[in-house]
Amino acid sequence: MAKVLAVNAGSSTLKWKLFDMPSERQLADGLIDRLGQAESTVKIKYGSHVYRSGHSIRNFHEAVADVMTQIKALGLVEHLHEITGVGHRVVAGGERFNQSVVIDDEVLRSIRDLGDYAPLHNPVEAEYIAVFRRLMPWATQVAVFDTAFHQTMPAENYLYSIPYAYYQRFGARKYGAHGTSVRYVSARAAEFLNRPLAQLKMIVMHLGSGSSVTAVEHGRSVDTSMGFTPLAGVTMGTRSGDIDPSLVAYLMAKLHEPDINQMITLLNKESGLLGISELSPDQRDLEAVEDTDPQAKLALDIYANRVAKYVGSYTALMNGVDVLVFTGGVGENGGDMRARILRHLGYLGATVDAVKNKARGKEIDLSTAEATVKTLVIPTNEELMIVRDVFERLPKA
Amino acid sequence: MAKVLAVNAGSSTLKWKLFDMPSERQLADGLIDRLGQAESTVKIKYGSHVYRSGHSIRNFHEAVADVMTQIKALGLVEHLHEITGVGHRVVAGGERFNQSVVIDDEVLRSIRDLGDYAPLHNPVEAEYIAVFRRLMPWATQVAVFDTAFHQTMPAENYLYSIPYAYYQRFGARKYGAHGTSVRYVSARAAEFLNRPLAQLKMIVMHLGSGSSVTAVEHGRSVDTSMGFTPLAGVTMGTRSGDIDPSLVAYLMAKLHEPDINQMITLLNKESGLLGISELSPDQRDLEAVEDTDPQAKLALDIYANRVAKYVGSYTALMNGVDVLVFTGGVGENGGDMRARILRHLGYLGATVDAVKNKARGKEIDLSTAEATVKTLVIPTNEELMIVRDVFERLPKA
Repeated sequence: MAKVLAVNAGSSTLKWKLFDMPSERQLADGLIDRLGQAESTVKIKYGSHVYRSGHSIRNFHEAVADVMTQIKALGLVEHLHEITGVGHRVVAGGERFNQSVVIDDEVLRSIRDLGDYAPLHNPVEAEYIAVFRRLMPWATQVAVFDTAFHQTMPAENYLYSIPYAYYQRFGARKYGAHGTSVRYVSARAAEFLNRPLAQLKMIVMHLGSGSSVTAVEHGRSVDTSMGFTPLAGVTMGTRSGDIDPSLVAYLMAKLHEPDINQMITLLNKESGLLGISELSPDQRDLEAVEDTDPQAKLALDIYANRVAKYVGSYTALMNGVDVLVFTGGVGENGGDMRARILRHLGYLGATVDAVKNKARGKEIDLSTAEATVKTLVIPTNEELMIVRDVFERLPKA
Repeated sequence: MAKVLAVNAGSSTLKWKLFDMPSERQLADGLIDRLGQAESTVKIKYGSHVYRSGHSIRNFHEAVADVMTQIKALGLVEHLHEITGVGHRVVAGGERFNQSVVIDDEVLRSIRDLGDYAPLHNPVEAEYIAVFRRLMPWATQVAVFDTAFHQTMPAENYLYSIPYAYYQRFGARKYGAHGTSVRYVSARAAEFLNRPLAQLKMIVMHLGSGSSVTAVEHGRSVDTSMGFTPLAGVTMGTRSGDIDPSLVAYLMAKLHEPDINQMITLLNKESGLLGISELSPDQRDLEAVEDTDPQAKLALDIYANRVAKYVGSYTALMNGVDVLVFTGGVGENGGDMRARILRHLGYLGATVDAVKNKARGKEIDLSTAEATVKTLVIPTNEELMIVRDVFERLPKA
């Protein structure tokens, strides 16, 4: 018996979930937002209750202390020592980490050093890890990397066609992201179908504000659409996905923008569905107006087109496919977007039932009886995957 | 009866072919190299003869004058006025030119203005066109654009997922290249199969030192792997093809290279097969040593992998495919590379006969009797396409 915390930290937000293990029962779901601003907001859902508060939380240390105080005050634990493990989502694990790992000083140093690959994420995550280690020294701290699941990719898929020395000297290669989600979803899809994961060719579409497509062959990630960073691949809410690298230079000249980092920020924050539609990064907003707004329709068509092309490309890579899986906010709830994507994929035999495809947020097999490729929706659960990884790594009693 | 010249001009080379029309008989094939250097080289093949010379050719005007002098001196024409048309390969035609066009002052100005999209090519081509107009004022001058055939792409394929205003203001979109080759090859493939082009879904792999994959649906280009420039898409001899745009910024920081144009040049000239293998941009050099040189093998595997993934992606885009076509130097002659690519594509039913696949440089159907997707080799002939376009546009007698 143990209670395990899953932590997902950003520069101005701290998300956490508390689980009872090994029952996998979720005890609470917390969020601190607007950290460092005049009034930070705190929201904790537990059972049928919601606790809300607005007060100043100035730094990471205060944020973690606040979480601990509330967990105790709301009676989620009797004593904080019941929390024997904390799992930290870490964006970049580089080539060093191909699975989750108990954090010691040396691991923490590595996470900091990998900040080169995720300058907005790893340094913040490392700071939070340090605070949690200081304030909960009795708990086992575990790092769960977004990239780890993709470390099984073969070199012919993770290498770019650039000078090889840049891979050796600078680690310039594809790392991917969403690995924890894809690991959960692919295993769950095989369970759901009651078929051995080790025999399936699967393509997982994790579609949300960030989106990726991953080829999972026999349970291992063999290729994924996100690249050196999560900017690459398919069209996303505000990210461009793949573009001709020459275009970066061309636009810098046209926009009189001398700083390439500004351009990359623009490709991350002002592109994707938002950039094309000039309206919203959210596909629901665009679906609401697409009949009268051609740019909204165009944005949705482009999004579906890019995802379908990646599915086709990974089908070629694996020389076939058995199962397509939708997950992530859009993948789980966006029946219209799923249909839009699947319109391209009839040739694979991935035919779906239009009524079943209205399903939202639940595990379901959308396939018709005649389908030769199964199409599933499997809601993701990264936090569950995180606390499972922590629980496995707790010291044996 | 007419004689028509096809011209392919670069900053230090001038390639030309002379055809008799409408017989389409090639009369001569000429090359001036090392223009502007101390000793330029001239080589002209005609019938079973080869003429070679080394002398100083200082500028574009002298180059064209030299071509005219030799054509007359070698007896390829009795009088230069027999050459009633000159077709100029032009790299960038933008959205303005969706087919070949007779050149007047205004067209020439447009070709210069499109230099933004092809700064190394259009300005040089425009200069040559001006010289040819001056020295052969009696001939009809026609521009044949590398991009024109791809102007049928729908917006959902030619637009990037970047702010829409950049398309409107700066023409930032996919234009593609190799259009003249793909137009020739796709039409010829349908003839070869004795099937109507208008009913076929075709994927043309133009594989050479520059490489592209194009989806040709019912005779129209619907998507192509080259992008805003010919840098994008699959791995090439020295070009990277697609990479995460973030990687450009990362490498500039790591290499202490402040100039993005230097980075783009590096991605164009020092990447691709050459960059990965650290040996050669030529797949034949790599095939010769791949058993003992892992980086050579890796480069070849990556090349095949990227081409196969584009074939898969365009199969999804068109919701199926009927015909795969190989063309270009590698596509026409590289049986080993074709086999390497096709290894991924068995799921499409594109099975080929290993003996037939030894064919080099000739039109052939490689498919086995059971194949459900036809796989052809069709040698390209851009110059023939160019002189046909010129001949169609000559003033009627």
